[in-house]
Amino acid sequence: MTATFAEATSSERVSLVDGVGHYDTSIRAGWDIGGNANGGYLLALAGRAMADTAGRPPLSLTAHYLKPGPAGPCTIDTETIRSGRRLATISATVRVADVPIMQLLGTFGDQTPGGPALVTGGPPALVPYAESAAPPAPDEGPLPEMMQRIALRLHPDDAGFRAGKPTGTAKMDGWFALADEEPIDAFALLLASDAFPPVVFNSGLPVAWVPTVELTVHIRGVPAPGPVAASFRSEYIEDGLFNEDGELWDSTGKLVAQCRQLALLPRG
Amino acid sequence: MTATFAEATSSERVSLVDGVGHYDTSIRAGWDIGGNANGGYLLALAGRAMADTAGRPPLSLTAHYLKPGPAGPCTIDTETIRSGRRLATISATVRVADVPIMQLLGTFGDQTPGGPALVTGGPPALVPYAESAAPPAPDEGPLPEMMQRIALRLHPDDAGFRAGKPTGTAKMDGWFALADEEPIDAFALLLASDAFPPVVFNSGLPVAWVPTVELTVHIRGVPAPGPVAASFRSEYIEDGLFNEDGELWDSTGKLVAQCRQLALLPRG
Repeated sequence: MTATFAEATSSERVSLVDGVGHYDTSIRAGWDIGGNANGGYLLALAGRAMADTAGRPPLSLTAHYLKPGPAGPCTIDTETIRSGRRLATISATVRVADVPIMQLLGTFGDQTPGGPALVTGGPPALVPYAESAAPPAPDEGPLPEMMQRIALRLHPDDAGFRAGKPTGTAKMDGWFALADEEPIDAFALLLASDAFPPVVFNSGLPVAWVPTVELTVHIRGVPAPGPVAASFRSEYIEDGLFNEDGELWDSTGKLVAQCRQLALLPRG
Repeated sequence: MTATFAEATSSERVSLVDGVGHYDTSIRAGWDIGGNANGGYLLALAGRAMADTAGRPPLSLTAHYLKPGPAGPCTIDTETIRSGRRLATISATVRVADVPIMQLLGTFGDQTPGGPALVTGGPPALVPYAESAAPPAPDEGPLPEMMQRIALRLHPDDAGFRAGKPTGTAKMDGWFALADEEPIDAFALLLASDAFPPVVFNSGLPVAWVPTVELTVHIRGVPAPGPVAASFRSEYIEDGLFNEDGELWDSTGKLVAQCRQLALLPRG
């Protein structure tokens, strides 16, 4: 039986004293792309341990990626920088064999719906999830295992790169869901923030490996049940770097997360 | 004589051993809005000490704001998480009277111009800086001192809030420069990322105090001489929170920084 996403991002709390936590866990197999764990998966793994230390869910979480994360044992050390009435700020280091692979800083706190509002953005026009086609298996074999654990449904207009015909526009819109209709919580939104193919794959530029330097996710709501609509884009791919900005909306059209990453574009 | 921005963001390096630094400095008077230091100023103050530890300029810097920063002595403790060939990752804590007021995490490294590019964004249409009017002094007295140390020139379309007539659009475009034509470097871009009036001032919503929870700035280039064009906006003001996204371009139209903050919108 395949573990749920919640199970695959759980850690064992070894100690939590005066806001300083130590967690034993592992980077589970099957959440990688080409042998190294997906950045969104690692963010969710660390974010869940940090939320345990904070005693509340993530509100804004930033990760800097230091080294690739292979499947296997790792530790997460957390430190409470400040714990206030509404918000707690936590830093964390993820280590594999005592070597830091990821450093994080986040503020944790519950959502507070309501109040004054001015919303001018919204989700992209997408074919309903139930009518969207699953991605075809690549010629060379089955889908990567991670793509069997999540359900991505790209907008057909943005799927050109899959057939070797990038659209020329650095954009990826589509749906995100977990396998077996597992509910999407704040941690799954962290995963979703880095689960889509990089937008540069549609840029037409010669790219293969695009390591993330930094990823920040702001959680903006508790998702209603159902798949999440997503839109990712970049207007500035240059000088060996690109930003990738994304928004995620729940099935009611409510914004539930905003994310931005800075990634390297290695020279061809 | 008024100190330059570079002087006002300098720190004394007390020690730097094995990548762990301790700096004595102070939050200078005159960089506040209503008694508490501006968030961009604090980011530049801390970022400059972190860059000293890293031995290279900021590339991506995130700050979580814990408490207001009054003028007076403070310390900055830095820690090198990883120092690689091209990039170094540094964390830092700013303390006033031994209490953390700001926690930071950043990756530092030189810009690497050139390579494949796809750029589809650009600066807003602005009246040339030299022809832009300085903001009027408020009825109740002179401009805040900080606004004498920097030169902001808002787009006339976005200045409505100044006359008590918010535009209804959460947007602020304009020019940023330092007083006395001091050159704009990466640290000044950190300042510029939080130097404009909050975009919610034009939203028409009842707002006064909008404390920043988190601010991330990606430095995307070394500015050419001259003022920097800026555009800030928010599409999602709701649930007691708003993001404010900004871009900064140098006088040649090149993107030099992208920033996003998550701020609280206290209920009226």
